[in-house]
Amino acid sequence: MVALKIILTGHGYNISKKGGLLVIARADGSKKEVSIGNVSMVLANLKGLSISGEALRLMLKHGVPLILLSKDKPVGKIQPMMLKTHVRLRKEQVKAQEDARRFKIASTIILNKMLNQMKVLKRISKTRPISEQEVIDEKVQQIYSVYKDVSESGIDARSWLLSKEAEASRHYWEALAKIVPKEIGFTGRKKKYENPEDPLNVSLNYLYTLLMYQVWYAVELSGLDPFIGYLHEDSNRRPSLVMDLMEEFRQPIVDYPLIRFLLKRKIVEALDDSRRLKDSFRKELLQLFFNTLEKNVTFMNRAAPIKAQIRLQPIRLARYLLNHADRYICFDVVM
Amino acid sequence: MVALKIILTGHGYNISKKGGLLVIARADGSKKEVSIGNVSMVLANLKGLSISGEALRLMLKHGVPLILLSKDKPVGKIQPMMLKTHVRLRKEQVKAQEDARRFKIASTIILNKMLNQMKVLKRISKTRPISEQEVIDEKVQQIYSVYKDVSESGIDARSWLLSKEAEASRHYWEALAKIVPKEIGFTGRKKKYENPEDPLNVSLNYLYTLLMYQVWYAVELSGLDPFIGYLHEDSNRRPSLVMDLMEEFRQPIVDYPLIRFLLKRKIVEALDDSRRLKDSFRKELLQLFFNTLEKNVTFMNRAAPIKAQIRLQPIRLARYLLNHADRYICFDVVM
Repeated sequence: MVALKIILTGHGYNISKKGGLLVIARADGSKKEVSIGNVSMVLANLKGLSISGEALRLMLKHGVPLILLSKDKPVGKIQPMMLKTHVRLRKEQVKAQEDARRFKIASTIILNKMLNQMKVLKRISKTRPISEQEVIDEKVQQIYSVYKDVSESGIDARSWLLSKEAEASRHYWEALAKIVPKEIGFTGRKKKYENPEDPLNVSLNYLYTLLMYQVWYAVELSGLDPFIGYLHEDSNRRPSLVMDLMEEFRQPIVDYPLIRFLLKRKIVEALDDSRRLKDSFRKELLQLFFNTLEKNVTFMNRAAPIKAQIRLQPIRLARYLLNHADRYICFDVVM
Repeated sequence: MVALKIILTGHGYNISKKGGLLVIARADGSKKEVSIGNVSMVLANLKGLSISGEALRLMLKHGVPLILLSKDKPVGKIQPMMLKTHVRLRKEQVKAQEDARRFKIASTIILNKMLNQMKVLKRISKTRPISEQEVIDEKVQQIYSVYKDVSESGIDARSWLLSKEAEASRHYWEALAKIVPKEIGFTGRKKKYENPEDPLNVSLNYLYTLLMYQVWYAVELSGLDPFIGYLHEDSNRRPSLVMDLMEEFRQPIVDYPLIRFLLKRKIVEALDDSRRLKDSFRKELLQLFFNTLEKNVTFMNRAAPIKAQIRLQPIRLARYLLNHADRYICFDVVM
């Protein structure tokens, strides 16, 4: 069991350094020491925060992002001085939006997402009663026919790709709705702005946000512009490349571990009266998420923790954009 | 007299907040309170630093950059969470490098630099003996003939523009070499890597670095990529757009105030034995620089402190790139 990698709840933290350890103390006298090597990100509320220069130096040196929150919303961040960049990469990133690479990347992401969805369903299916297995298999077949549609058509309209993605995802979430316990009340996927009231949707939205920060940071470290993407529409408020690169991680890093967790654990009190995650349940989700990030997997002939694979993917995309690799391959390991 | 806007020397600072004031205390008990409205940037050594969340919140809210130094070199920074951007601007910035806008911006910068150089020389000339005035006037004429060359030729080769800029600058620095006291030992402009040994060159290099941080921050706030420029060559290590936008400020913000300062003040001990600025002299330069930033000037029909004009220029360039303005006009106020 690894330590929590993130501080989200409450305020009044004092962050200092002792050797290679981050020392996190609170006004009530509680204290935690974490080796910097085990920390992938720190989120801290500004209220009552105090932080030492040596702790900042340790985080900067190990590439650990510090996100500063005000009332749980990110308002600032500490990051290494960007004293160099990769100018040709930035330009190729823009140019690729207007040539054949855009469609290649977009369709690769969509097709891989469908493959991952089928993998998750098949994996879960094995542990279910025969009657459920048949329903799941049917959904897998439906996703597969969408997959074939996309891979064989060669239609390079992004709106069409996105409609196909929505179709596959509908089958995927319908299958999962049949699997998760009825008490959870999950009837279909609902995003944050749709105000879901069941713990699965609320948990998914929470974990996808954590995943977004991980991918965002990886994109920034790679030198790519988070806001110039290929599948998702350009937006000044949504970093489309981060959205693009999140797709391949949603199923293996969030969906599959979360569903397994919910199947094992009876949810007694996940949400409070206003349909928000209770602190105790949120801590369990954090533990689940950051344990997953530490898992070693082999991908592209490289064995590394998932958090490192997340860091590597934007770099691999950059190689493709710079013509140092002949294609971009999405993450597809469902453990 | 305004307070120093920057902390560079020494270490062991504690930065906290009291109302709208930044409270900066040191281990020796010394303490300074500065209104956040008067602060344009904070540079602090990580060694012995301690900073409160409320101080961070105050700086984030007022857009005051905190640059973290290790042995006086910037290693990190604290900045607002970039939760939105301007995607079309980023793309236009890249596209403008490859269309007619590149030459328009580059030649505007070069021509304005020559005009500013002539303004500085004429302004200084007034206070000099007649014999010197004649020499200066001759140099002004030489710069003017280069200016005419560039403005009339329409040659759109960047290397040619840069060679013309070098020609004008040679005349400019030759004129200044005749003006500054002989004791200073200034025989011509020398950049940092040329290891200058006279206080004027060492001071210029120091102040240009401070100016660079100001412009860099302004560029980042505007949403433009610091590394995609028009006059200066693309480089992964030198932010070419920052270099471009610095040009128009070098003469009014650094050269002119510095020359006036050196003409008034006898330099007794500016440099130490290894030809670096002595702490006491560096503090005078900081005072000079940040006093200049506070000066109100009217430019483009807008009266504002120079530090605000610096913030506005990248925004004005962005307007041109987005076709909301039909040209970009460089800063040209020599006070």
